[in-house]
Amino acid sequence: MASTPLAPLAISIGDPAGIGPEVIAKCWDHRKEFGLPPFVAIGDGHSVDAVWDGPIEVVDDPGQADAAFDYALPLIQVPSADGDVPGHPTVAGAHCSLDSLELAVGLARSGSAGAVVTGPVSKEQLYAIGFQHPGQTEFVAERCGVAPGNVVMMLAGPTLRTVPVTTHLPLARVPEALTSALIEARARATLRGLQRNFGIAEPRLAISGLNPHSGEGGQLGVEEAEIIEPAIAALAAEGWRVTGPLPADTMFHLRARATYDAALCMYHDQALIPIKAIHFEEAVNITLGLPIVRTAPDHGTAFDIAGQDRADARPMAAAIRMAAECAVLRAESA
Amino acid sequence: MASTPLAPLAISIGDPAGIGPEVIAKCWDHRKEFGLPPFVAIGDGHSVDAVWDGPIEVVDDPGQADAAFDYALPLIQVPSADGDVPGHPTVAGAHCSLDSLELAVGLARSGSAGAVVTGPVSKEQLYAIGFQHPGQTEFVAERCGVAPGNVVMMLAGPTLRTVPVTTHLPLARVPEALTSALIEARARATLRGLQRNFGIAEPRLAISGLNPHSGEGGQLGVEEAEIIEPAIAALAAEGWRVTGPLPADTMFHLRARATYDAALCMYHDQALIPIKAIHFEEAVNITLGLPIVRTAPDHGTAFDIAGQDRADARPMAAAIRMAAECAVLRAESA
Repeated sequence: MASTPLAPLAISIGDPAGIGPEVIAKCWDHRKEFGLPPFVAIGDGHSVDAVWDGPIEVVDDPGQADAAFDYALPLIQVPSADGDVPGHPTVAGAHCSLDSLELAVGLARSGSAGAVVTGPVSKEQLYAIGFQHPGQTEFVAERCGVAPGNVVMMLAGPTLRTVPVTTHLPLARVPEALTSALIEARARATLRGLQRNFGIAEPRLAISGLNPHSGEGGQLGVEEAEIIEPAIAALAAEGWRVTGPLPADTMFHLRARATYDAALCMYHDQALIPIKAIHFEEAVNITLGLPIVRTAPDHGTAFDIAGQDRADARPMAAAIRMAAECAVLRAESA
Repeated sequence: MASTPLAPLAISIGDPAGIGPEVIAKCWDHRKEFGLPPFVAIGDGHSVDAVWDGPIEVVDDPGQADAAFDYALPLIQVPSADGDVPGHPTVAGAHCSLDSLELAVGLARSGSAGAVVTGPVSKEQLYAIGFQHPGQTEFVAERCGVAPGNVVMMLAGPTLRTVPVTTHLPLARVPEALTSALIEARARATLRGLQRNFGIAEPRLAISGLNPHSGEGGQLGVEEAEIIEPAIAALAAEGWRVTGPLPADTMFHLRARATYDAALCMYHDQALIPIKAIHFEEAVNITLGLPIVRTAPDHGTAFDIAGQDRADARPMAAAIRMAAECAVLRAESA
């Protein structure tokens, strides 16, 4: 971490009945071991109390969190109307998770918080209260005044970063959804994100093929020649360092990963299989294209194990650490 | 290695202008360090001479290889009509690679050789001489009297084994190619192969979904409910230990891999991305469903680096080791 002063990070707890309260509390417990900067939890303090015996200091503003962080978990209270029980999500808890997310984003936008880390929410519960976005990412984008199409989801671990061009589509619909324009837009957002969030002046982007062996010269598919190669040519003409289309099966081993800063993949599993196979406990979801830094651990609410002291806090710790690193890099280059 | 006596393995050199000669010679050089059993190379000795200064002992039969193996690389000569130059494939070299493969398979079928390991061939060169099979696997199957549809390609490494249900198809054609019957056939061949080749009495097979999040209850695709789940139900009804359909992105991390003996995947990259990301230098291609053991290193001829002493022999060593282990296990259970 550089010497640039960083405002405390805002961490929305997520669904109060999920594992968010537990992993955030564990991160505070192990803050030294995990190498974490000061942060403030945002959500219902009772949900943390229900799963943790440590000290909580209720604060009004992230600015008060720095002093408190040494001896207690700083928390901005966003009460839930129900007494939430771990593992039993409620409508009130869903409202609380959404209010917490909104507040965390607002604090980062205003500069009071150095970055936002979002705890896991239940999409089903959010949809039940009328939430209109596919997920937290799109909600954060809207609150930041950015069109959802202009942000990209990156999964980032210590030796690999991947970005899917298409995300939550049936596999059969992926080929028709791919266009050169879409690939170019995702590539540019990724490349700019590598510059802004990761401090890489001349980022190298590896772009995968869609088909086995990257189409094998047209024998195993035409999307490489018709869609992906023109996109790569256009990006290269703009001066970006892009390579591809690469056969997806040989681009993720250690030596291959060392040749690029991020891999742009054509579909969900092509991007998520390698990152989770290699960096399961350390993969961080980071949203590129926002005016703020936003990360999230790459796991869900895990209602089935909530409140049992079984949740692994390492993914949340990795998300906090990456948010801080990216926020410092952005501040330094601003 | 158990104490069952194992006949020397037959290793076809592959294309004489590729890296096959070099990696086989290196395997003999490092036979102790790699832990390799006696083997005999089958192909044109000149192609080995061209890239290696070590001793070669020409033999007529694998039975003579045991004694020679201590002081020289045993080789059954299959001459190429051309003087093959590394990196410059020829028609004569393609014929030689095919003749070598045929001889290696014949020796294993007759019991003279303990197993077959196949060096890399050039499909383009083979097609140019009228080769009618998609690859070596189908040729070996035919020579063994097995229908190509009844053998499966497994990629096996120290902590993961994967089998693709569909292989060299454009991604857009994968959904229509999947049927419950095909999944069941591949699953049965894989499960029997785990029993016969790997000595696992009650193998556990994890079966992936096709779509992101394994279809998310139908919201992201219907193939899981319509095709994959019925296949799993049928296999379970036969008494096989099968699980799935599992979301492909979360089934390949270390703890997940420990819960099954092989993963059956719906398409090429779904199977090959994780195995190559995790076990790039150690992934072995093994054909299941044959009356003999056949393995291969999972790389090509690499004409671009042939003859430059740059080829990595570890994949070939892993293929030889696995062939020997599987041959011993098969002999013991026969």
